[in-house]
Amino acid sequence: MDDATYERRVRDCQRRVANGDADAVVLFPGSNLTYLTGFDDDPGERHLLLFLTTDDCTLVVPELYADQLRAETHLDDLRVWGDDDDPRETVRETVGDLGLRDAGRVLVDERMWARFTRDLRAAMPDATLDLAGEVLGELRLRKDDAELDRLRRVAAATDAVSEAVREADPTGDTERDLARNIERRLREAGCAATSFETIVGSGPNGAHPHHTHDDRRIERGDPVVLDFGGRMDGYPSDQTRTHVWGDPPDGFREVHRVVREAQQAAVEAIEPGVPARAVDRAARDVIANAGYGDRFLHRTGHGVGLDVHEPPYITSENDRQLEKGMVFSVEPGVYLKGRFGVRVEDLVVVTEDGHERLNDSPRDWRV
Amino acid sequence: MDDATYERRVRDCQRRVANGDADAVVLFPGSNLTYLTGFDDDPGERHLLLFLTTDDCTLVVPELYADQLRAETHLDDLRVWGDDDDPRETVRETVGDLGLRDAGRVLVDERMWARFTRDLRAAMPDATLDLAGEVLGELRLRKDDAELDRLRRVAAATDAVSEAVREADPTGDTERDLARNIERRLREAGCAATSFETIVGSGPNGAHPHHTHDDRRIERGDPVVLDFGGRMDGYPSDQTRTHVWGDPPDGFREVHRVVREAQQAAVEAIEPGVPARAVDRAARDVIANAGYGDRFLHRTGHGVGLDVHEPPYITSENDRQLEKGMVFSVEPGVYLKGRFGVRVEDLVVVTEDGHERLNDSPRDWRV
Repeated sequence: MDDATYERRVRDCQRRVANGDADAVVLFPGSNLTYLTGFDDDPGERHLLLFLTTDDCTLVVPELYADQLRAETHLDDLRVWGDDDDPRETVRETVGDLGLRDAGRVLVDERMWARFTRDLRAAMPDATLDLAGEVLGELRLRKDDAELDRLRRVAAATDAVSEAVREADPTGDTERDLARNIERRLREAGCAATSFETIVGSGPNGAHPHHTHDDRRIERGDPVVLDFGGRMDGYPSDQTRTHVWGDPPDGFREVHRVVREAQQAAVEAIEPGVPARAVDRAARDVIANAGYGDRFLHRTGHGVGLDVHEPPYITSENDRQLEKGMVFSVEPGVYLKGRFGVRVEDLVVVTEDGHERLNDSPRDWRV
Repeated sequence: MDDATYERRVRDCQRRVANGDADAVVLFPGSNLTYLTGFDDDPGERHLLLFLTTDDCTLVVPELYADQLRAETHLDDLRVWGDDDDPRETVRETVGDLGLRDAGRVLVDERMWARFTRDLRAAMPDATLDLAGEVLGELRLRKDDAELDRLRRVAAATDAVSEAVREADPTGDTERDLARNIERRLREAGCAATSFETIVGSGPNGAHPHHTHDDRRIERGDPVVLDFGGRMDGYPSDQTRTHVWGDPPDGFREVHRVVREAQQAAVEAIEPGVPARAVDRAARDVIANAGYGDRFLHRTGHGVGLDVHEPPYITSENDRQLEKGMVFSVEPGVYLKGRFGVRVEDLVVVTEDGHERLNDSPRDWRV
């Protein structure tokens, strides 16, 4: 993304701060800061805080990062503190200079660590600290073309890995072996990293929706839940397939068919104006009608952007209407404790008049 | 670690809560929770909160994780909420049942996200939220034998990789190639992951202390700062060497000698009873006397345990006296903008009567 993009986003954010009747947004390292500046680093124990008021944009930054921030971002108002300074003092001064000492409402990063919110609270004792999501979440909800390009590209790379993994019989390997193999292939496909810990849930392990991988050996006939994604140019992918090498166990064919139908029904429900819960409902109805309602243990999906989990959440409760540019996962599953799990997942973008799947590797269980 | 270890730690923590005049500690996924329960997962957007009062230990947990938590930890008081519940309601009920509604002082995880501290604040409107570090930080500061075993093991594995990397001439490769190579070797050495993003700072890139790696090609005669570590059984390593393949540039030999002397002086200063700042001072004096005082841009070290950055911090300000079982890095550096950087780092444990280096791969720049 170029400086102009970041400058536009900062201005949009400032406008929303003013309209939202807040005095400032305060961010720290993470996807919100990346979205506004391009700076992409993990949170650390040092105070690195962006203060955004309606007409100012100031960064409190440890000396260690100052050159990097100057080189990599469009920010120019930097307040640098060194390892021998007390950063809380820098925060207090910044708050004073920005006229925020008597701030009434300040929006802080959802993920800001308690040690930093505590220091903000000390510097702005009368402020109500609410969450920056009310501004940043709205900004980030609709992806622009540059973001969609990146999401399409990393989805295509992940699809290619999905197909290659399907072709290579992993029976006899452990889940961990296969996870490493997938991660190597993702890197070879151009991904800088995985977007979350690779899930290889074979046999009964697949019945735990958030099992990652362990030393269980994959046997012929095991259903294997493969849920993974790469990250490229800052954007993640996320897709799930459930394959069987060999003959599946009793009942598996039926469950897989139901989950695929549920996933298809949910994807078909996607278009602008539809509430998120209708997408969840479409999947849940198919599974419930087949008698597995209580074995679908999670929501149908989550938004995907700079974060692999972000709004909009596709739950039974979410009334939010879908809009063009929203991107989220559609991933119904059925989990039979002690036996196996089945999940099928694609990322989908809401288009002008419907939807577009970002993933298109084979969804069949047969390999 | 066995259940008895975790139960002992929980009791220690409860005792400190009582002695510290607090009503409760509230944790969420991260190293504090791992320390007390063994549960090791990244924070997520779902409410997963451990409430620890002087006589109770209750976990608010999303349904998705409930079975895993029951299987993997000694916790038995679980309050499970499903994707269709409002977890804030579960938090409110838990706070009520634990008698915390009128709590005066509650210690929350340093890294707890603002979205969760906000919900705690709503459920305990009169409580002052302070940081759990005053209890957990003290508990975790001195490593027990089981922890030291793990730290020694992962340091030895990282040392072996360091030696192997030294033997293999990387000139002509990019920094990124070498970083991938190091990460592959760490995995082959038995590490489950890296403990932070691998730093390969060649030539002028080495002058940025927190440069990670990019597509710059390593040339003969480039000083290369190699700062990396693996993670094994939950514990990280962290070591830095600065090597040159070929003839180093003007001035490099002298700077490298100064940094090694500084590192040696700092390590020799380590023994129980000495304030942390004396270790920083020992390194800083050597570098300042050689005329590079203003090119040593950071503190001398940081504690290492479940977190790769944790107390004690080895800064010019920290009066904390060293105690047996503390583990921290000693990593002075000199950074010459536009030219090169030099850093040498080992992990060191404070022993009964002195210190023990956990790393011992060659520190010389010659390969």
